[in-house]
Amino acid sequence: MSFELRAISTSGARVVALAEEHGSDFAERAERHDREGSFVSENFEAMRSSGLLAACAPQEFGGFGVESLHDVALAIGRLARGCPSTAIAANMHIVAVWVVVRGWRTACRTGQQDRRARLQPLLPLLGQSKIIISGAGTEPGTVNTVPCTEAVPEPGGYRIRGRKIFATNSEIADSINVLVRVCTPDGATRIAMATVARGTPGMEVRQNWDALGMRGSGSHEIVFRDCFVPEEFVAIEGPLGEQPLFEYLATNFPLVGAFLGIAESARDHIAAFARERRKLPHGTPLCERHAVQTEMGELEVALAAGRAALGRAGQLIDEHLAHPEAHPSPEYVDLLMKEFQCAKLIVNRAAADVVDRALTISGGSGYLSSSPLSRMYRDVRAGPFMQPYSPLEAYEFIGKVSLGIDPCAELRSAVAQMLARERSD
Amino acid sequence: MSFELRAISTSGARVVALAEEHGSDFAERAERHDREGSFVSENFEAMRSSGLLAACAPQEFGGFGVESLHDVALAIGRLARGCPSTAIAANMHIVAVWVVVRGWRTACRTGQQDRRARLQPLLPLLGQSKIIISGAGTEPGTVNTVPCTEAVPEPGGYRIRGRKIFATNSEIADSINVLVRVCTPDGATRIAMATVARGTPGMEVRQNWDALGMRGSGSHEIVFRDCFVPEEFVAIEGPLGEQPLFEYLATNFPLVGAFLGIAESARDHIAAFARERRKLPHGTPLCERHAVQTEMGELEVALAAGRAALGRAGQLIDEHLAHPEAHPSPEYVDLLMKEFQCAKLIVNRAAADVVDRALTISGGSGYLSSSPLSRMYRDVRAGPFMQPYSPLEAYEFIGKVSLGIDPCAELRSAVAQMLARERSD
Amino acid sequence: MSFELRAISTSGARVVALAEEHGSDFAERAERHDREGSFVSENFEAMRSSGLLAACAPQEFGGFGVESLHDVALAIGRLARGCPSTAIAANMHIVAVWVVVRGWRTACRTGQQDRRARLQPLLPLLGQSKIIISGAGTEPGTVNTVPCTEAVPEPGGYRIRGRKIFATNSEIADSINVLVRVCTPDGATRIAMATVARGTPGMEVRQNWDALGMRGSGSHEIVFRDCFVPEEFVAIEGPLGEQPLFEYLATNFPLVGAFLGIAESARDHIAAFARERRKLPHGTPLCERHAVQTEMGELEVALAAGRAALGRAGQLIDEHLAHPEAHPSPEYVDLLMKEFQCAKLIVNRAAADVVDRALTISGGSGYLSSSPLSRMYRDVRAGPFMQPYSPLEAYEFIGKVSLGIDPCAELRSAVAQMLARERSD
Amino acid sequence: MSFELRAISTSGARVVALAEEHGSDFAERAERHDREGSFVSENFEAMRSSGLLAACAPQEFGGFGVESLHDVALAIGRLARGCPSTAIAANMHIVAVWVVVRGWRTACRTGQQDRRARLQPLLPLLGQSKIIISGAGTEPGTVNTVPCTEAVPEPGGYRIRGRKIFATNSEIADSINVLVRVCTPDGATRIAMATVARGTPGMEVRQNWDALGMRGSGSHEIVFRDCFVPEEFVAIEGPLGEQPLFEYLATNFPLVGAFLGIAESARDHIAAFARERRKLPHGTPLCERHAVQTEMGELEVALAAGRAALGRAGQLIDEHLAHPEAHPSPEYVDLLMKEFQCAKLIVNRAAADVVDRALTISGGSGYLSSSPLSRMYRDVRAGPFMQPYSPLEAYEFIGKVSLGIDPCAELRSAVAQMLARERSD
Repeated sequence: MSFELRAISTSGARVVALAEEHGSDFAERAERHDREGSFVSENFEAMRSSGLLAACAPQEFGGFGVESLHDVALAIGRLARGCPSTAIAANMHIVAVWVVVRGWRTACRTGQQDRRARLQPLLPLLGQSKIIISGAGTEPGTVNTVPCTEAVPEPGGYRIRGRKIFATNSEIADSINVLVRVCTPDGATRIAMATVARGTPGMEVRQNWDALGMRGSGSHEIVFRDCFVPEEFVAIEGPLGEQPLFEYLATNFPLVGAFLGIAESARDHIAAFARERRKLPHGTPLCERHAVQTEMGELEVALAAGRAALGRAGQLIDEHLAHPEAHPSPEYVDLLMKEFQCAKLIVNRAAADVVDRALTISGGSGYLSSSPLSRMYRDVRAGPFMQPYSPLEAYEFIGKVSLGIDPCAELRSAVAQMLARERSD
Repeated sequence: MSFELRAISTSGARVVALAEEHGSDFAERAERHDREGSFVSENFEAMRSSGLLAACAPQEFGGFGVESLHDVALAIGRLARGCPSTAIAANMHIVAVWVVVRGWRTACRTGQQDRRARLQPLLPLLGQSKIIISGAGTEPGTVNTVPCTEAVPEPGGYRIRGRKIFATNSEIADSINVLVRVCTPDGATRIAMATVARGTPGMEVRQNWDALGMRGSGSHEIVFRDCFVPEEFVAIEGPLGEQPLFEYLATNFPLVGAFLGIAESARDHIAAFARERRKLPHGTPLCERHAVQTEMGELEVALAAGRAALGRAGQLIDEHLAHPEAHPSPEYVDLLMKEFQCAKLIVNRAAADVVDRALTISGGSGYLSSSPLSRMYRDVRAGPFMQPYSPLEAYEFIGKVSLGIDPCAELRSAVAQMLARERSD
Repeated sequence: MSFELRAISTSGARVVALAEEHGSDFAERAERHDREGSFVSENFEAMRSSGLLAACAPQEFGGFGVESLHDVALAIGRLARGCPSTAIAANMHIVAVWVVVRGWRTACRTGQQDRRARLQPLLPLLGQSKIIISGAGTEPGTVNTVPCTEAVPEPGGYRIRGRKIFATNSEIADSINVLVRVCTPDGATRIAMATVARGTPGMEVRQNWDALGMRGSGSHEIVFRDCFVPEEFVAIEGPLGEQPLFEYLATNFPLVGAFLGIAESARDHIAAFARERRKLPHGTPLCERHAVQTEMGELEVALAAGRAALGRAGQLIDEHLAHPEAHPSPEYVDLLMKEFQCAKLIVNRAAADVVDRALTISGGSGYLSSSPLSRMYRDVRAGPFMQPYSPLEAYEFIGKVSLGIDPCAELRSAVAQMLARERSD
Repeated sequence: MSFELRAISTSGARVVALAEEHGSDFAERAERHDREGSFVSENFEAMRSSGLLAACAPQEFGGFGVESLHDVALAIGRLARGCPSTAIAANMHIVAVWVVVRGWRTACRTGQQDRRARLQPLLPLLGQSKIIISGAGTEPGTVNTVPCTEAVPEPGGYRIRGRKIFATNSEIADSINVLVRVCTPDGATRIAMATVARGTPGMEVRQNWDALGMRGSGSHEIVFRDCFVPEEFVAIEGPLGEQPLFEYLATNFPLVGAFLGIAESARDHIAAFARERRKLPHGTPLCERHAVQTEMGELEVALAAGRAALGRAGQLIDEHLAHPEAHPSPEYVDLLMKEFQCAKLIVNRAAADVVDRALTISGGSGYLSSSPLSRMYRDVRAGPFMQPYSPLEAYEFIGKVSLGIDPCAELRSAVAQMLARERSD
């Protein structure tokens, strides 16, 4: 594929090449998983064996040692060319590993012995992909940074109560990162991340993922009924409604790559189709028709915009993560998040546009379930829903940052009012 | 629903009201048929009983006597609000009846006794909806006006050989109008319409409709293997590649109404959703969020464009059909067809846009299979594929007519070359 | 021009035909006025002589008696095909006449003798176009329904103080309708319409209109320095910030026609250009190039959307104005205003799109000042700024009405706060 | 300005910084030159003094030694933020210098003594900006690669006959590169580049540039009436209709930067406007309005797409120019040209979109001639006309390359037919 994005780092290049191989393989099973709505288990086994799931684990523990999120995004895109469901499910785990490893590296560098000691035991497990991680952030009826799922303190730990949806990967995850709210001893309500092990009593992964697309991603609902989690597995973060640290936010970036991958795959599919398929009365291949060429021209322009935006945002994110101390101000982080969100919107729009134009060129055959385009049309629509942000929030966020207005002030005030309402109830 | 399109004729108004009732009823079964990919049989029974299928049959034979295609388009739209598959399947039959009735009326008016005698026996059957008609126009690998399916003359009739796809309604049709080519005694190759009765040996309706959307429309593949059709059931028309008469072309117009109906239904669904659904931390209904209002504003603008375009084109078509003699020139017909095609593009774009914005407002819940929006997103994408024309052909057609260039000249020349190639083989 | 919009009323048809004639004539002077930024005086003289300016004056007083705003919009569009500046300047006067005549008709019908007596003397003047009316609504730094220009009561009348911009027609107007705020004896602040005669001391029409486009419309700034207006020339209306009566709002509708007219003219210009202009190496007319045909196809689709939307909204507005008593509720009026605003957005977008595509087809020659397209590109951009509403307000208005939310509540509350702030200063 | 594109090379960074300084200065005169349509002479003097015009001249001859076209594009963009006319005029000269220097470097490296000897004398002149170069490529009625302007051989040189338009910079150029056709002794017709010195008898620069925008660029018409040019100033290139070498094509790339610069400037202008301007009844700055924030969000997304596309294409072009031997195939060059053309379309669309949204936010004040936005709206529309390619050609080119079809075959065949026609005349 010509002028596709290339990895920045050496380790990234290896992982991207491996992901491309996997993608070709997964393509063969994508239709079946989509039709059945079944989780892409054998793909996960293959990625476990090849080491792809350990892309971000340190090399000394058996991983590839990828630190560049730009490169992770490319790898996710390569998987998505074959099977988007697998791509987003793999992404969920891979970036969770990235977070652990980054924490460990920081602890090593800064001499935080406790943190290092807590994280180090995970590294061999992650390097060998012995455990798979899922994340449960979304809930119906609230924004992600204001979870209603609660961690209620009790001696030695917390009881988790609530319900999460869209928990990608939950079908097989050994460990689930659950975004909760917790009431701290000083009476403040904060966000926390609870890590819940599979099989913990009170946690039920409902096998009910049934959606328009991404049907193989196992993004089930999870119900927590007074599910006990030991104290050391609940990490308390900032106030309710606050944006998380940029290094957490940034882990949502590689997911964007999945939608670029769908677009690239749609392009390749329709280009091959147009070169092969002939139509009477002309009897020549479709690609010789002017209208097909023009449509293909528009498609390529959309794809080029998506690639350029993803590549640029990935580089800017990597640069900041390499030297966060160079720009410690919250304003800088907001500006960087703005660039990320612009790229997300550009890629998602471009990807939907590419698939739509490919369908147009297909002339009806793409509308049949037997065409991969009909699956891509459904899968690609997931992009805008991915958090953060949905389009409804993204334009406002971008606009506020652009205009020098604190993008969280309004939410912060709404949270304060909500907490006041809750206390008065 | 405010400022929706209104019927022009009295009989049309009755049918539109009836269709609206049916639509509400059909909405309840739409999800099941979509999920199963099963034909909407009980809906057809209901429309047979109510008389809706006989919308265009003369009143004296039990029908509603609707002549306005504008009004038929509205009725199809009302059905589509509830179940788009039913709408396009019903449309297939209803406009087939319209053609018969128009032919009969013309025969009566102009004193063509033969034609009148041939058509009259059909009227009681159509007035009572005793027979259901399907049409089989599309084939893979060729444009509709250049069918490869052949009617080979033999004593007393023809043998049909070929394969058709996207034959909406074929699951239950008693009679199928098949577009074929026929070699006439003088050596010319012409288009013809063969009417094939269900159960004719050699005709196999493959029960294989399985598509992205419109899954309940029974648009199966049909294979004809030396299927005998008596001479009187094959009507020979113009040369291969020529546009049919405008009154045949015009019968594709009401189908456009189905996609407006989807858009209207998406609007109503999401407006209700936004008024009811609340989201923390604000806790107020979604409709109070500025971003939701803006998105809804864009949605309404798209819907308004679709409605206005459908209504105007329908009126122009009706006017011409009422007095075709006022503008008999082929140039006029091309100009009118241009208006129709503009309306088709506007409605189809608008409908896709409306559904997309409704999904955006839904914030993730619309992506679940349980939401009607996830079905509408798939159903609405069928619009641009409907013939004539696909977007790839439509812009060129419109542009040529606008610039005073014969829109069929190039195709005519390609057909001539194709026939020459065939003869030399 | 094929399938252009047609007048609904007989009197409208006469006026539309007359406007079309004028348009052809005005086209010859459009470039000069644009280049000089000079007011289109001779065009006004011509429209005075022909009676076009009296389109809405009763026939018995020398006018054409047009009541349909749909038809006025068409006439304005026909003028705009030749000279958009003239079209919007003529519109300003014509709809001002419409308001007077409608008030007089209502007074006659309902027996309001005072109002009748006050308006009747104007009718011969308007029927003969002896006076030209301008309107001054816009001010910098505020929305139109919250004017800062004040009418300060004093014995026998008011002193007007303030500044207006974009006062189309003010170069030659004999009478200017000025939107002001007035403090009523009961302490309430209300909107009022002050009618100021040319030459009134204290009113200065600054001859400073100098804009991107519409350069011949004489839309100058007007400064009022304690300008005395007799009591009977100040009509007090509703509270500050409230929407005016629909019959006032509706008079903004015909202006939308001007932008459709620009689009129609751009289409005609570029179609002729593409048929005539040849380009090497092909040496054939541009219209034979596929890319030109496709672009023309897109252009025609945009134009068709604009026409349909304008026609439909015009009909709905006419219907309501004919029988306002049928739907007296404010909710109905908001819904109708929503349809108007949708049409405005559709037409303005379509017109800009048409001109842009015409420029694309022109291939560089349209960029030269000598091409009318370069003027149309500037004139057409005025559309979205026309009140009410600008796009920034329109989507929110439409969305709110669509979602059942009072579209004026937020503004009303802001006005209340503003007045409170003012009182406390 | 946050996250603007950054130079790749050290010399580029110096030039970009210098261009930014110039831009701020030029902004003050931009309105005057635009209004008068006068050439930006004093800006050229300033750029001559500062050395900016010698950006690409070798350092040893007094230049900055910039080789990166990516960086030249950025410098042009910085100029365009202040004065787009100056930017495109400067670009014309700067890339002409780049071509000479690249030829000289190649000659030095490969030991082409003749070529080196011919080019070396120019270097001190260019390093000191003693001569200003213009290019005359465009003619009415033909594509650029098929000039009608002829160089007719005669002893010792050629007579140039023909007419060129859009010759940016021609007002002050000392030397003009004129694209001509020449009949070679073997009877073939080829493209050639004739370098014509100012003051050559028979060459008339008509001072008639008068366009929608870019009014200060001195892009006059030039007429050649048997204008004699010595043999050594006519470089014969490939056949008529062929694409030039990529290193010539690539020099059109930096021009794209000008349109990104306009967009950046529009963004900055409107952001400042929205932060300062207040509007009643709210009385708060515009930037606090949701609708403004949303529009600004859309604007930023467009800008981000433009930046990313320009940056990526510039890098790909630079990479190839640094090692053309790595990918010598014409297919590769077509693919790279496709990337360039995609970037051009993305930037031009984005820039027009940004300016349009800025106008929307301006709420009417941007429509006045006194606002820089009204000039940007006109200047930005020049982008799509810049060669190669216009949008009408670009989509087809991109589509063909994407589909593996020779993008020049059709033109080549048309040229052959044209030459045959000419011979037969």
